Parts: sequence; structure tokens; C-alpha cells
Amino acid sequence: MDDDALLAEQRAYYRAAAPEYDRPYAEYEALQQLLAVVDDLPIAGDVLELACGTGQWTPGLAARARSVTAVDAATEVLTLARARTTSSTVQFIEADLFQWQPPRRYDTVFFAFWLSHVPPTRLPDFWNTVSAALAPGGKAIFIDDGPAAAAYEEVLTNQPTPAALRRLDDGSQYRIVKVFHDAQTLTDDLTALGWTVQIQTKAGNFIGIAEPPTTAG
Amino acid sequence: MDDDALLAEQRAYYRAAAPEYDRPYAEYEALQQLLAVVDDLPIAGDVLELACGTGQWTPGLAARARSVTAVDAATEVLTLARARTTSSTVQFIEADLFQWQPPRRYDTVFFAFWLSHVPPTRLPDFWNTVSAALAPGGKAIFIDDGPAAAAYEEVLTNQPTPAALRRLDDGSQYRIVKVFHDAQTLTDDLTALGWTVQIQTKAGNFIGIAEPPTTAG
Repeated sequence: MDDDALLAEQRAYYRAAAPEYDRPYAEYEALQQLLAVVDDLPIAGDVLELACGTGQWTPGLAARARSVTAVDAATEVLTLARARTTSSTVQFIEADLFQWQPPRRYDTVFFAFWLSHVPPTRLPDFWNTVSAALAPGGKAIFIDDGPAAAAYEEVLTNQPTPAALRRLDDGSQYRIVKVFHDAQTLTDDLTALGWTVQIQTKAGNFIGIAEPPTTAG
Repeated sequence: MDDDALLAEQRAYYRAAAPEYDRPYAEYEALQQLLAVVDDLPIAGDVLELACGTGQWTPGLAARARSVTAVDAATEVLTLARARTTSSTVQFIEADLFQWQPPRRYDTVFFAFWLSHVPPTRLPDFWNTVSAALAPGGKAIFIDDGPAAAAYEEVLTNQPTPAALRRLDDGSQYRIVKVFHDAQTLTDDLTALGWTVQIQTKAGNFIGIAEPPTTAG
């Protein structure tokens, strides 16, 4: 391959790569915009954050809470979350959320981009766990991908549980649970379980605020 | 695959994905830090920016220049650069830098992450073009990857020209020119061509300020 051909391919690369080349900006800015919604949500008192991941949401919660207890199953993401969160009112717990039982009740139970990773058959139990974790008058607040986000995933078909394929830089592939809830169905399902719920949508995401059935509280 | 196995794979994904998951933050912040060096460089007067790409550097140059003329070969990156740059003192030109001849002289010729994409056999001509584009007393200012950056590229071996492979999300692959200049060799080479040059390194990158041979000016 001579230099002219290589330079032609180089030009072709930069033409084709333009949208991906700027992606760190775009992703950072889109996430910053979404993170800002925390300021408009009724985050209060002692907050339980489920599936905190790398702690992208944790500092924003800590700024508005008396305390934050942030739980995740993955050691590696918790290491990053701890590095990102310097507040002394934040405590991290490593635990499988499908096994873990909250040791106390909280004023707010918050989970961002976790509901879509809960298998549908486990949703009733999950909502019961959230309900049991809420103090009287407490609220569940949740943010996740709406149906439009499916366009950005490799959705797997013919699976017993809705799933998607994720790829890492080293070429390794993982199947994950991924349910793209739509706001109306989720509202109906939660209402049927006795919850009082309001869900708004924002740029392909939904943001829910829900109070559990009082009999379960 | 039952839900337990799927959930185990999901946990494995998030453990393995932790560093990549936060990459938009890391890349954004590293680039913001590097972009800030513009404030410490002798950007002045009428500036020519070679290979402006998606215009990441252009607004910072415009803030310190009387005018910026930003040139790139790729239509698609120029569209993004125009969207990013609102200053009325910036003009964009679409041209192949290996063909284009500057129509006038400039006080500063700036190029970030372009030198590494120039084939070594074309470097003497490239530096002559830069020299011819500089007004008396003008300076070339350039930023690029040092040798440490090779660790982040798929370097192609046994090529007549130093090259790397770049992959896009759709699986397509492109060979590009990629020369990881080290500061000392580059200083020696430019000095041999009659330039006066100072190169500093900063977190894997180098930042050069160079004045052309007066006989060429």
C-alpha cells in the first residue's frame, strides 16, 4: 500500500468516523443534562441508591440527602464510585440486589438504569423489596431507558428474558437483561400493584416518582 | 439460559466493563485538560489551523486570535466543527492538506494531532509548507501523541509507512498513518531543517513551538 492509497484511506476514516470521534463529548454532555434532573426530584432524608454502578448519580444524591447508602454487586464499579464520591455521608455496600435485604428503611429509594436490568418475572418481588425499604411517606425515584433506547443496543431475540448483547473493547461479549419499559405500561403495572406513580419522559428516558401501597408500608 | 445464569453474566459484564463504562467522562476530562494548554501558548494574530477535525481546538484558538482559518479534508468533520464554532472570526476551508497551498501568510500555524498523520517521507515538504505559511516572526504550534500513545492504538507492523488500524462501531476498519514522534528526535529533525524549536511533554502528549529558518521566511 503506497502513501497515496494510505492517505486516501485515512481521509475516508475521518469522514466515516466523524460522529464517533466526538462521542465522548456527546455522551458526557447528554449524561450531564440527565444528571441535572436530580435537582428537580424529591430526593430527601436518608437515601438508598440501588445499583449505584460507577457512582455517576451518587454525588448529586449526596448533595441533597442527609445520607446515601449506595449498593452494587460489582467490586470494580464500586471502586470507581468510591473514587468519585468524597462525601462523608455516603456509604457503599457490595451486595447482589436479588439477595440483599435492606437493614432499615429510607426516605428515598433511588435507582437509575437499574429497572431495565431486572428480569420481568422478578419485578413484583423487586417492587416489594423497594416498598419494604421505604419509611412512611417515602418515595421511590427511578430513571431508565425508554423504548427508543433499543436502537442503541444489540437486542437479542428469542430469549426467555428480554436481553441484549454488550461488547467490550477486548472483543468479549456478555448477555445482560434489558427491558425497555414504556411509561404507560409501567404506570399501569405499578398501579395494579397498589402504587401511586407519576412517570415523565425526557429525551428517550423516563423518570418515575412512586409511593408504595400503604398496606405494604 | 435461565434468569440466574443471565443475571450472573450481567454481573460479570458490569465487573469487566467498569473502566470502559466511565470512559466518556475520562476522555472528556483528559481532553478538556489538554485543550486548556491553548491559554499558555503564544497564539496570536491571524491563525491558520491545519486539520481542524471536528473543531475541538478551534473555539479556544478563536478566543485568542484576530482570525482563524481552519482547514480539513473531511466534509463530515467540518460540519461538526462549524456547529461547535460560533465565532464570526472563524472561516472553514475544505481541502486536502497535501495539495492545498495557503493563499496568504499567518501569525500562527496551529495543528493538533495532525503531525502524527503525515507520512515521514512527506515531512520535509510539510514543514516547508508551514514555513511558507508563516508571516515574519510567526510561529508554528503543534500538539500530538508521544510514544506512550502507541499503547492505545492497533499499530500495524511491516508497513512501508508507520500506520495503525482504526475500527468504527459498524465493524469497518481503516488504516491510517500514525507516527509517534518523540520530542527529542523531532527537535533534532526540525533543528536540522533550520527551525528553532522548543518541545515540552505533558501527560503523554508533546507541545511544540517552532520558528522557521529565516531564509525560508
